[in-house]
Amino acid sequence: MKDKAFLMIPGPTPVPETVMTEIAKHPIGHRSSEFSSILKEVYANLKYVFQTKNDVFVYTSSGTGAMCAALENLVNEGDHVLCLSLGNFGNRWAKIAESIGADVEKIEVEAGQVIDPEVVRKRLAEDVNKDIKIVTLTHSETSTGAANDVKELCSIIREHGALSVVDGVTSVCAMPCKPDEWGIDVLVSGSQKGFMIPPGLAFLTANDRAWKVYEQCKHPSFYFDWAAHKKAVDGDTTPFTPAVNLIVGLNQALKMIKEEGIENMNARHKRHAMALRKALKAINLELLVKDDKNASCSITSIVPPEGLSVPDIRKIMKEDYDIVVANGQNKLKDKIFRIGTLGFVCDRDLIAALGALEATLDKLGHDFELGKGVRTLIEGLKEI
Amino acid sequence: MKDKAFLMIPGPTPVPETVMTEIAKHPIGHRSSEFSSILKEVYANLKYVFQTKNDVFVYTSSGTGAMCAALENLVNEGDHVLCLSLGNFGNRWAKIAESIGADVEKIEVEAGQVIDPEVVRKRLAEDVNKDIKIVTLTHSETSTGAANDVKELCSIIREHGALSVVDGVTSVCAMPCKPDEWGIDVLVSGSQKGFMIPPGLAFLTANDRAWKVYEQCKHPSFYFDWAAHKKAVDGDTTPFTPAVNLIVGLNQALKMIKEEGIENMNARHKRHAMALRKALKAINLELLVKDDKNASCSITSIVPPEGLSVPDIRKIMKEDYDIVVANGQNKLKDKIFRIGTLGFVCDRDLIAALGALEATLDKLGHDFELGKGVRTLIEGLKEI
Repeated sequence: MKDKAFLMIPGPTPVPETVMTEIAKHPIGHRSSEFSSILKEVYANLKYVFQTKNDVFVYTSSGTGAMCAALENLVNEGDHVLCLSLGNFGNRWAKIAESIGADVEKIEVEAGQVIDPEVVRKRLAEDVNKDIKIVTLTHSETSTGAANDVKELCSIIREHGALSVVDGVTSVCAMPCKPDEWGIDVLVSGSQKGFMIPPGLAFLTANDRAWKVYEQCKHPSFYFDWAAHKKAVDGDTTPFTPAVNLIVGLNQALKMIKEEGIENMNARHKRHAMALRKALKAINLELLVKDDKNASCSITSIVPPEGLSVPDIRKIMKEDYDIVVANGQNKLKDKIFRIGTLGFVCDRDLIAALGALEATLDKLGHDFELGKGVRTLIEGLKEI
Repeated sequence: MKDKAFLMIPGPTPVPETVMTEIAKHPIGHRSSEFSSILKEVYANLKYVFQTKNDVFVYTSSGTGAMCAALENLVNEGDHVLCLSLGNFGNRWAKIAESIGADVEKIEVEAGQVIDPEVVRKRLAEDVNKDIKIVTLTHSETSTGAANDVKELCSIIREHGALSVVDGVTSVCAMPCKPDEWGIDVLVSGSQKGFMIPPGLAFLTANDRAWKVYEQCKHPSFYFDWAAHKKAVDGDTTPFTPAVNLIVGLNQALKMIKEEGIENMNARHKRHAMALRKALKAINLELLVKDDKNASCSITSIVPPEGLSVPDIRKIMKEDYDIVVANGQNKLKDKIFRIGTLGFVCDRDLIAALGALEATLDKLGHDFELGKGVRTLIEGLKEI
């Protein structure tokens, strides 16, 4: 039905009406005192959401821009960077590091798996000369729905002495992610994810250890330069003309996040993801991430049984039930589909999605007890 | 008056209601067929506006991002880059080139002046070893309102063999700017300018000569990478999640530009700028750019006489008449104020601005014949 499509993909995610209303206002001057007041609030509330005492920079860019902003302010040609990869976005760290001329080493796992901390501990223990300067990792891997134990991994990295650079694009807001407490040295995220605003803004926070490495960086990126952004944050401004409308929307969204409370927001995502996983299993679907403890709370990947095609499922979900779910990416295209439960998602959305999925599977002749998914979901939402 | 502020700054510029309405729609998936159709139209219409047969890339970034996208895909450490600078934004090219490790040489002029083509011809003639690889220049210098003769300068640069890289941030849409016809090798612009949409998108087009230099670039920027963007344009998509809402708005704005016609849009800007210049002189104000032929059609800088303060003028314009004009930048702060006539500006806006400026100057005791400005403006709008 026209204008009814509802996004349950890992981004863009649904945007609250009050946020869209803010975005719809005519742009104001980015050097005005009105805009400075907005930025002041935004910078303060971002620290709350990122649970850090350090500044959080706002870039006008895709999430990938913030990933570049991390490595392009740290890496010199020839630096040894170890990339722990769970999939597409883990590999992106490696590609960015390579683009700068780093000497890149990868530890990769099969799709749906997570990094075994012991493997990292062993590899770093071997690095007696401390050649490895930076370790990149992904909190919630958007392409698979697997989630690393970032706390454990960062403590291992810290012990070695390398810098930990973490992709929190689909984890910040959705899952506990505590840079100061866990020792994450650099953390990035993006706006069209847990932040409940449209794409176009990205975020980065770096601690003192990271700044020391920045100081050794020969050619920091001009556009993403940390020092320029630090100076701008101190002056309640931005170095270049930012996406004014999106920042005005972000201000509203951050207030909503603060009102819900970051812990409650995390808990809501966990409740949704875990109830969804139970419900999917109850209708005889296989999950790509087997173990709940390795599952992202923002994205769940489903491997349909033989005979059920991903394009068919996505087509019926969209055309008959106005719900958009995501395909797999690259090698996983048409092998899995992914349901996003990220950002502005309520119990009703989840019930609608699961019900629509049951209706879809019913049409496609999948063998399951119709109604059991929604029943299990509702029970699951009570339980957790 | 609340919600009445009208921007007459060089960006952000006013946005048409139909464009804002598009931007206010909930984001759609950036990998959907609906969004691909929009991008297909956008890419086609951008070629029309840029008057080029080459692709125009869309970056989710500030205009400065597109400037980085130009040099970070061309320059290797140690390359000799000649920067022709009229002010703040000409200097920005130099800073970006320096950030990559280029060997930067500058030709600078006083604020309000333009580059003398003969000076460039002479300098390039001296470069018998063809050390100079790239020459950067600014079409319309936003910080002063001076505009270079880009056609002439690019023909001189082409004769030498260096690559011309042009900042068209406040010229594209407002002034004739013809990369294919004039031999501009790389041209960049930004969304919150002549394109009549809020900030957050930037554009770049490069010709075959530029692509040959790109191929020699050792570490092209990952985020701004030309090859990734070229591949995306060919597939009606973007390499990373773009600012979906702004692109949907851009699609609408480009249709409006096409409907007006790019030549008519250029002519409207010229008519406005020239009539405004006459009117300002008629009320005894001094223009920073003396000669009409060196004047930008998108921005006009005024040097107030002794005793009139820029902050006072801007304050009264804003508080009493709800019109925002820009201060000078850096060294020119409080020395000049700037009136933007860029993008979605009609005769009525100009009459209102000039009338409000007269009222402001009257309050501040400036010596002039009240009403003469608006009279001259109206006459001027008829004439050209």
